[in-house]
Amino acid sequence: MSDPLVVFMPSGKRGRFPAGTPVLTAARQLGVDLDSVCGGRGICSKCQVSPGSGAFPKLGLTVREDALSPFNKVEQRYDEKRGLKPGRRLGCQAQIQDDVVIDVPAGSQVHRQVVRKAATARDIVMDPATRLMVVEVEEPDMHTPSGDLERLKRALKDQWQVDGLTVTLPVLSKLQPALRKGEWQVTCAIHHDHSGAPRLLDVWPGFYEGGLYGLAIDLGSTTIAAHLCNLQSGEVVLSTGVMNPQIRFGEDLMSRVSYSMMNPGGDAEMTRAVREGLSGLIEDTLSEADIPARAAVEITVVCNPVMHHLLLGIDPVELGQAPFALATADALTLDAAELDIGCVNPAARTYLLPCIAGHVGADAAAVALSEAPGAQEDLTLIIDVGTNAEILLGDRDGVLACSSPTGPAFEGAQISSGQRAAPGAIEAIRIDPETKEPRFRVIGCDLWSDDPGFAAATKDTGITGICGSGIIEAVAEMRMAGLLDAGGLIANAEQAGTDRMQPDGRTQAYVIHDDGERRITVTQGDIRAIQLAKSALYAGARLLMDERGVDRVGRVVLAGAFGAHISPLHAMVLGMIPDVPLDRVTSAGNAAGTGARIALLNRAARSEIESTVRRIHKVETAIEPRFQEHFVAANAIPHATDPFPELRKIATLPDPSFNTSGREGGRRRRRG
Amino acid sequence: MSDPLVVFMPSGKRGRFPAGTPVLTAARQLGVDLDSVCGGRGICSKCQVSPGSGAFPKLGLTVREDALSPFNKVEQRYDEKRGLKPGRRLGCQAQIQDDVVIDVPAGSQVHRQVVRKAATARDIVMDPATRLMVVEVEEPDMHTPSGDLERLKRALKDQWQVDGLTVTLPVLSKLQPALRKGEWQVTCAIHHDHSGAPRLLDVWPGFYEGGLYGLAIDLGSTTIAAHLCNLQSGEVVLSTGVMNPQIRFGEDLMSRVSYSMMNPGGDAEMTRAVREGLSGLIEDTLSEADIPARAAVEITVVCNPVMHHLLLGIDPVELGQAPFALATADALTLDAAELDIGCVNPAARTYLLPCIAGHVGADAAAVALSEAPGAQEDLTLIIDVGTNAEILLGDRDGVLACSSPTGPAFEGAQISSGQRAAPGAIEAIRIDPETKEPRFRVIGCDLWSDDPGFAAATKDTGITGICGSGIIEAVAEMRMAGLLDAGGLIANAEQAGTDRMQPDGRTQAYVIHDDGERRITVTQGDIRAIQLAKSALYAGARLLMDERGVDRVGRVVLAGAFGAHISPLHAMVLGMIPDVPLDRVTSAGNAAGTGARIALLNRAARSEIESTVRRIHKVETAIEPRFQEHFVAANAIPHATDPFPELRKIATLPDPSFNTSGREGGRRRRRG
Repeated sequence: MSDPLVVFMPSGKRGRFPAGTPVLTAARQLGVDLDSVCGGRGICSKCQVSPGSGAFPKLGLTVREDALSPFNKVEQRYDEKRGLKPGRRLGCQAQIQDDVVIDVPAGSQVHRQVVRKAATARDIVMDPATRLMVVEVEEPDMHTPSGDLERLKRALKDQWQVDGLTVTLPVLSKLQPALRKGEWQVTCAIHHDHSGAPRLLDVWPGFYEGGLYGLAIDLGSTTIAAHLCNLQSGEVVLSTGVMNPQIRFGEDLMSRVSYSMMNPGGDAEMTRAVREGLSGLIEDTLSEADIPARAAVEITVVCNPVMHHLLLGIDPVELGQAPFALATADALTLDAAELDIGCVNPAARTYLLPCIAGHVGADAAAVALSEAPGAQEDLTLIIDVGTNAEILLGDRDGVLACSSPTGPAFEGAQISSGQRAAPGAIEAIRIDPETKEPRFRVIGCDLWSDDPGFAAATKDTGITGICGSGIIEAVAEMRMAGLLDAGGLIANAEQAGTDRMQPDGRTQAYVIHDDGERRITVTQGDIRAIQLAKSALYAGARLLMDERGVDRVGRVVLAGAFGAHISPLHAMVLGMIPDVPLDRVTSAGNAAGTGARIALLNRAARSEIESTVRRIHKVETAIEPRFQEHFVAANAIPHATDPFPELRKIATLPDPSFNTSGREGGRRRRRG
Repeated sequence: MSDPLVVFMPSGKRGRFPAGTPVLTAARQLGVDLDSVCGGRGICSKCQVSPGSGAFPKLGLTVREDALSPFNKVEQRYDEKRGLKPGRRLGCQAQIQDDVVIDVPAGSQVHRQVVRKAATARDIVMDPATRLMVVEVEEPDMHTPSGDLERLKRALKDQWQVDGLTVTLPVLSKLQPALRKGEWQVTCAIHHDHSGAPRLLDVWPGFYEGGLYGLAIDLGSTTIAAHLCNLQSGEVVLSTGVMNPQIRFGEDLMSRVSYSMMNPGGDAEMTRAVREGLSGLIEDTLSEADIPARAAVEITVVCNPVMHHLLLGIDPVELGQAPFALATADALTLDAAELDIGCVNPAARTYLLPCIAGHVGADAAAVALSEAPGAQEDLTLIIDVGTNAEILLGDRDGVLACSSPTGPAFEGAQISSGQRAAPGAIEAIRIDPETKEPRFRVIGCDLWSDDPGFAAATKDTGITGICGSGIIEAVAEMRMAGLLDAGGLIANAEQAGTDRMQPDGRTQAYVIHDDGERRITVTQGDIRAIQLAKSALYAGARLLMDERGVDRVGRVVLAGAFGAHISPLHAMVLGMIPDVPLDRVTSAGNAAGTGARIALLNRAARSEIESTVRRIHKVETAIEPRFQEHFVAANAIPHATDPFPELRKIATLPDPSFNTSGREGGRRRRRG
């Protein structure tokens, strides 16, 4: 009689094994993705499986009740202590007796998928660089002396196929007590990424149950965001954010580069500031999630090139002048301690994604990793909107990238009533084209300002200003309501036919809200700031389209924390983005942060983005004469020459002209 | 007509090259060992050669005056600025025109030999892990953006075949300014040892002329010795030493292990002490030699296992009890910074030689590297005498090793008039067998105490005590003069027939010197301390001889700084070492320090000792019952049962017995 047949689901992998073979052993021999931390010692419970029963006609077999060995003592003990779901068995304990179909639940797969919401996005397959492994180490023998570390290495090689292990002194100093306390059984946290040798990050006596965590960091010029992830389940435990304390040295990147040029030691000061900010955020995040520092073993970081250099302790001065040479563009794997991050495991590792060019950083690489433009059938334009905009254009035929100095206007900075996105900030606004009356919504309240109960609902927060998405909507609505001409000139009360237009120095301002205490307006200066920002954005996109030789794109993806809140219609009315059917504009949320999370959870993604980045064609906006032409043409709302036919199908754009005096001169652009 | 023939001497390598080929290029293609730091740019002058002229009948060629191109401008400039020895040419400038014989002087060879004095020792071939390389780096191009580091890596690969370079953040932060200041030419210090990837340790703009240095450290329980070496010439620039500040935690190793066991945090305290001591010594050494910290790029360390663990920050508690398990036995390559050595180049690397076993450390490995017992034809016994003695016995058939707890008596500690070797200490002594009168010599003066002028010559230092070699001679001379019986009992004045024997409590003491101010004696307690120490030493050697199955050895090598000063005759009278013809006892000087120096200057030696150590057979004295038997039998002077026939040919050993009362009870031995 032949050996029992085992079929694993959902992989369908199958094979025959002698009766008495543990399910885990069969799975390993067939290359089935079944997790185990303890190496089959019945302590970690990661290898849970669900045996089927009855007839499986498609597989041509019937599973008898006793196809697996009976529930044994180890399983009983585990069930009593921790509880085992009905029908579940421990794969290392249950032995194959007869033909059987074994289902491996998602939770028992090492390479389980973390599902992402966005339809275009790929799921993340779990394959983190750091894993836990339980080993039994041989005891020392004074007649054939050898170091405890050498015996641990041998055990890891024999039991886990880990070869060439490295270790740092502080971890080495923990080894002898751990081995003796654990009676020669220890749990190791082994970091083995795509590029280096495996490294022992930590060691615990016996079986360690505390889990491993990592942090995906999106280090922006204005804010630092952290996503604390469970490195075994892939779950995002907590997402947090903090202002980048470097802001005190300058709001945009170029002002920070200048700070370094003007102040000897200024770069070191900024390095200290950002490292302290990052450490503080990580410490607070771990503390809020109640995760001990020691369990946090990995960090991935995405950021623009200036933040990249400042975080690394490199003077960014070369990034402020052509040819914008990076000190290093390649991805880096470092000790967290090298970045003065002391609030995680002392041996924690940090991975910085590669930069694409002097103006196109690891944040753009992370967007490319998350949104995979090179895998798209449609020609896809991806815009990561922030203080500096990163722009990617690509499909399966290739990917282009540039960055564009939009400045912080889109984030509510340099806007007269601007503020950052916080409760009380106007985030959406509609202006009645007939009455020219506004209604709006503020962050922290779902009601519109003309809904009953709005005043009561916003009593606590108040109405405090306009955030980035609010100012975009306000300017676009003013344009659609005829309060603004295509050149960006604001109407006066007479031209507009509403006394919400009020004089503001030599120009006009549109009053959105005035409760006696606080007056929120859109000024001519605000319009100009938005025009400069959106022109830079559009010019960058157009430059990539030129380079690609196209006039239209297939899809537009708005990325960035802020991109998630932009109304596609209003963005198009403003002429921030090229003309496409509205349903072809989608938001990817914080794609850079997602890219950091992918790199944290899947080490193959690190190799992938490193080779992707090498294939991306970079376009340098700063020295491209056409950028200037595109910038000037894009100053009009929506555009001086591009017709925007798709937009005109769905939106009415009146065509007044308020230019009575030629009072506005040439405008200068500004990098930042 | 065929191309000109070039013959390089002393290698004899030869080949034909087209006229116009630079000598350096020809040398490289033939694999001739001709140095160059600047890569043939005419700036480093390392590639100097001496062309021959006239007839070379053995080579069958005649060299014409114009066999090489005329002295060119680069050579003239160099000659004017620095001076070129007569007949010398720069190999990168002089071009081959006709058949020529080129002599490569020793100073122009990368792998030049550093000659060692000892006849049995091999010379050291220069092949340090860290070398200087000048490279030209491509300038950045904003149209094909790449990091400065990536272009440096490419240049190092193209120009120096350095592949897979790694770099730390502090060095990376220096790169951009160095490249620009050097106008895209920089000198790199590249560390590439036998085990890891090449690493950029430092970078200087243009051509760096400052040289590279390394420190070979012999970290003993009592003293720390440093040898500062030039990593290009191999020259020892300066040797220095300092007391190990750990001494305050216990004189011998086991008392330090106890300190750690008895005092929580005691291991960390001792780690701090030894690291501070080591850093201080290195700082003072560099300062005295006027070498800037930045030029010191490598350190090698040899030490016993307890010092090894304490230096690394590992609690040595396991080394104090069977099975004497080391945390790690393998060689380690670390950053100097990991050992808190801050007074060298911040990126300096440290290499610790491997340990052989829990009681046989990296110092014994270094002795094996220096003395190469496994390469000897005679069965060679190598004894490294210190607070702990390391003993090696071997020849081409194999090598055995053990350590023996001699304690610090041989270093003058625990001796009533003992002191460490310093000016004023008695280092040699002779006792007239007739008159029983002593004469002696002190450190700092070449005269004997009965020479005219001795008093004047020693006026400044005084006569302050007895050092290690002095006490050995004193006890051996007392034995030969009949003042001491074979059991180690001291005569009284009557038995001895001299009033230099004076009562000392219930026993006697021999007065060597008494000037009214200071009285220097050898007491019965001193004799007992020396007996314990020498018995441990002899028992260890005997144990290895048993293991090897021999009763005699072919040669005895005394190593250790102290070993250099021991008189072989007196050592044999004492029975410290087995009986061999006196001319078969040699001193290897500080062999452990030499081993550290070899590992510093030749990276292949690192691989060699790592594989040698694996083949050495370790014998653990602490648990071997025969050790105890050998120890007891070795208590007599020279020995209770071994006849010492070679010794008796050259020395008279009277055979009195002073045991009148059975006053001495059993003796205990002590580990340390």
